[in-house]
Amino acid sequence: MRLLFLGDMVGRSGRTAVWEQLPALRNDLNLDFVVVNGENAAGGFGITQDILHRTLEAGADVVTTGNHVWDQREALEWASYEQAFLRPVNFPKGTPGRGASVFVARNGARVLVMNIMGRVFMSPDLDDPFAAAERELAACPLGEQADAALIDFHAEATSEKMCFGHFVDGRASLVVGTHTHCPTADHQILNGGTAYLSDAGMCGDYDSSLGMDKEEPLNRFLSKVPKGRFEAAGGPATICGVGVEISDRTGLADKVAPLRIGPRLEETIPPFWR
Amino acid sequence: MRLLFLGDMVGRSGRTAVWEQLPALRNDLNLDFVVVNGENAAGGFGITQDILHRTLEAGADVVTTGNHVWDQREALEWASYEQAFLRPVNFPKGTPGRGASVFVARNGARVLVMNIMGRVFMSPDLDDPFAAAERELAACPLGEQADAALIDFHAEATSEKMCFGHFVDGRASLVVGTHTHCPTADHQILNGGTAYLSDAGMCGDYDSSLGMDKEEPLNRFLSKVPKGRFEAAGGPATICGVGVEISDRTGLADKVAPLRIGPRLEETIPPFWR
Amino acid sequence: MRLLFLGDMVGRSGRTAVWEQLPALRNDLNLDFVVVNGENAAGGFGITQDILHRTLEAGADVVTTGNHVWDQREALEWASYEQAFLRPVNFPKGTPGRGASVFVARNGARVLVMNIMGRVFMSPDLDDPFAAAERELAACPLGEQADAALIDFHAEATSEKMCFGHFVDGRASLVVGTHTHCPTADHQILNGGTAYLSDAGMCGDYDSSLGMDKEEPLNRFLSKVPKGRFEAAGGPATICGVGVEISDRTGLADKVAPLRIGPRLEETIPPFWR
Amino acid sequence: MRLLFLGDMVGRSGRTAVWEQLPALRNDLNLDFVVVNGENAAGGFGITQDILHRTLEAGADVVTTGNHVWDQREALEWASYEQAFLRPVNFPKGTPGRGASVFVARNGARVLVMNIMGRVFMSPDLDDPFAAAERELAACPLGEQADAALIDFHAEATSEKMCFGHFVDGRASLVVGTHTHCPTADHQILNGGTAYLSDAGMCGDYDSSLGMDKEEPLNRFLSKVPKGRFEAAGGPATICGVGVEISDRTGLADKVAPLRIGPRLEETIPPFWR
Ligand SMILES: [Fe+2]
Ligand SMILES: [Fe+2]
Ligand SMILES: [Fe+2]
Ligand SMILES: [Fe+2]
Ligand SMILES: [Fe+2]
Ligand SMILES: [Fe+2]
Ligand SMILES: [Fe+2]
Ligand SMILES: [Fe+2]
Repeated sequence: MRLLFLGDMVGRSGRTAVWEQLPALRNDLNLDFVVVNGENAAGGFGITQDILHRTLEAGADVVTTGNHVWDQREALEWASYEQAFLRPVNFPKGTPGRGASVFVARNGARVLVMNIMGRVFMSPDLDDPFAAAERELAACPLGEQADAALIDFHAEATSEKMCFGHFVDGRASLVVGTHTHCPTADHQILNGGTAYLSDAGMCGDYDSSLGMDKEEPLNRFLSKVPKGRFEAAGGPATICGVGVEISDRTGLADKVAPLRIGPRLEETIPPFWR
Repeated sequence: MRLLFLGDMVGRSGRTAVWEQLPALRNDLNLDFVVVNGENAAGGFGITQDILHRTLEAGADVVTTGNHVWDQREALEWASYEQAFLRPVNFPKGTPGRGASVFVARNGARVLVMNIMGRVFMSPDLDDPFAAAERELAACPLGEQADAALIDFHAEATSEKMCFGHFVDGRASLVVGTHTHCPTADHQILNGGTAYLSDAGMCGDYDSSLGMDKEEPLNRFLSKVPKGRFEAAGGPATICGVGVEISDRTGLADKVAPLRIGPRLEETIPPFWR
Repeated sequence: MRLLFLGDMVGRSGRTAVWEQLPALRNDLNLDFVVVNGENAAGGFGITQDILHRTLEAGADVVTTGNHVWDQREALEWASYEQAFLRPVNFPKGTPGRGASVFVARNGARVLVMNIMGRVFMSPDLDDPFAAAERELAACPLGEQADAALIDFHAEATSEKMCFGHFVDGRASLVVGTHTHCPTADHQILNGGTAYLSDAGMCGDYDSSLGMDKEEPLNRFLSKVPKGRFEAAGGPATICGVGVEISDRTGLADKVAPLRIGPRLEETIPPFWR
Repeated sequence: MRLLFLGDMVGRSGRTAVWEQLPALRNDLNLDFVVVNGENAAGGFGITQDILHRTLEAGADVVTTGNHVWDQREALEWASYEQAFLRPVNFPKGTPGRGASVFVARNGARVLVMNIMGRVFMSPDLDDPFAAAERELAACPLGEQADAALIDFHAEATSEKMCFGHFVDGRASLVVGTHTHCPTADHQILNGGTAYLSDAGMCGDYDSSLGMDKEEPLNRFLSKVPKGRFEAAGGPATICGVGVEISDRTGLADKVAPLRIGPRLEETIPPFWR
């Protein structure tokens, strides 16, 4: 089974690149399941229902999010009924929407997708991500109710990400980090069979600060006085993510490799899909 | 001119891998200048004079550090006279040792090397890294007193790293991040000619948490109660870093690519050096 | 009913002052119930079983703690059977000891005592303190299973403390903050009848940094390089806390005032007890 | 010499209380010099020129600020020429306005007033507050160019505040903390003669969260999802601060005591001024 995850779409540049390229990718690479993080899709801040729909139409099966999930307040209204939309599972009880759900892939596989937020250097303070994962995996174990399991672990600190990967190793197909907007090169299959990547990177303009126009962020580092708003960078986007070949038998990962397409970074397609 | 930077050596596994492989790398790749970050070389915490010497003997021209620089307290004694040792330049006045210096490469080039610590999510709180860079670059401008300039920017947050890169773009040959112990895949040459990589990754065992045995870090995430000490992981190390081809004429970067050698990550050598 | 709470005992100076003065205070002020925070009683770091026992012998009914609770690792062993010892209730399930319990006061009243840790600027990251309080208060409501309820809210940020106070207003007799080691002067009875004080302050030497010898903390602020260990300051202690007159009928607060006895701060005894 | 410092005015309620009461206080208590922190005077966020002027007209000699100083962006325009306005001195070079200056008191004394921001748990990251104080005190030493020296140390952590107090002990008349909006009761004269109070508290409605309407802050602690904006609480304000009797001979403190006037907290006037 072929699973593709794409990191945080940032602004118009990032989401447009995904919308334009995902249909062909889905087809050419023969993908069974696609997840995209959309927490920064609306000008860098949150996501609208329209953007959600267009991302699904482009070929995403699920859209995950993170700390920016509610930046567009309209999301609070439709989160509960948009089945393909996930917000971090460790928000308090009563939060609109869901953080984990099972989806059916193109090949018929049942895929558990979970969106969890880390706590180190993160805001707001959410409930224990490790306990949350334990609970969700117990409710829908890989090899029983799920044929594959993907966790988008939205977090800042590498230590928390790596420890989380080891924690669920053997119980998930893929743990992929998001939030730093910087693709890491540490993709590997952990000892228990879980594919791991510390961060997928973003789908956005890499001539920027995290996909945002660099002028204002740089101004704040230099002057400590805000001059304007943060705005999404408008240059051409590079889409970044990770591909996993999942065993139909075990639900664990056979192969993992990054995908990067665009003008600034070294381009790559998972070699096992070329 | 060929410059290689290797990320934080972690513990015996990491430093041994560097010591064993650097001599051949230096020779085979015909390297002119090598910098290695050594802040975690002694069991994960700081560096001893003996480790410093052996790293230099293995082929490093300079050893940089970071927030862990003084974990081995002996470093406070020899930091001032070990010419090839750098600690973050933005420690307060009066701190032993230096944070920036000019070195002569094998090809005769004068290389300014600077070690700077970021402030976002970092401890201790040091002086403004942007102002520090401005000062050092003004004192020894690329193209005048320096034929090349390398900055090891030791920091957590991608935003600070990227903004720093843009800030010195055109004034340094390479800005390479360290500290997260996770190699990033965003190597690029910025608009002004500076090679950039958000994090070099570590030289250490990647079946771990940041190169440390994963048991105790994972225990702390789960139980919130310390059980033992943090110890360096003992498995075989992967060495991670970045290679830059620097223009002899401008001191800026012509090419940049990662280097990763070892058992866990996807191996790569800068293609322009193969 | 007369309830006295004393803030974090720091080191020998702090605990000795409490041991020496509490018996007389208990008698002279005719106290019905006494709670003391002991998280820094052992040299500034944690608490031993011997210190716990001597504090109880001196007249404390309950000893609460905070983030330093396990600094003396022996506490992990006896926490489960020492009935008068509380650790923050929002540690993960499976943590030794208890975070809330009902005790019988000298006047026969059943007093619910709860120890909770905040999350803003605090480490380690514990579970939601608001949800934890909700759960405990539901399990043992004031006016039903409890005749009085005291919450030691161990936290850094005033905002979290004040919001917590409002959250349980009308459902607890007293919310008193600890952790900053600095007595606040904002004692008041909230609209619903809960007595509130942002921080009780410490029982320790106020010619110090948080009760610790000021030399090393100051050195670290100045030099950013550790020189030695943190050690409890040895000068004479001021004991700090808060007294509450609780209605026997409602369990809510009739009166609240600070208590401070010692050489450095302005001394005061709750006027309604003089 | 009689010096009064009032903590952060919060919103209309806080500033109005100061404007109404300061003229009489100034007269009745025969004050020589008055400093008020105004960083939250405009709806909780920053200060306008009009509010600055009215505060000066009410009897303040100087208005200090803190992290919120530029929340009203107009302040960037007039900061440079409003002589009685201070922003934290450790903003980067080039920041509008001044952070320290000498003023002439009603009794003719030259008073150095300094506004400094701490770094622990604070944002933005400013330059070293200890080094900044050292520099300013060296430029205008107490007993030489200054007859009195007041430092408004705007910071979160008690440890940083206490260490700062010890650092300048004997070189300033008063170190008073601001920012937590919670009055502390640890006023004392340090060993070297400097009056010290960890936090002056705010001038605002104490039935609130930091002077802000408590509904939205509480909502965020509970739900982790913003519902609305933060707005200043509208109930009657309590004004909080500290009075110091300064020796005309040494410029050091003879006496120190808090001042609190208003409906929620225990009222007090420095006894030596009654
Ligand atoms: Fe993001
Ligand atoms: Fe994020
Ligand atoms: Fe490191
Ligand atoms: Fe580091
Ligand atoms: Fe404490
Ligand atoms: Fe504490
Ligand atoms: Fe304030
Ligand atoms: Fe503030």
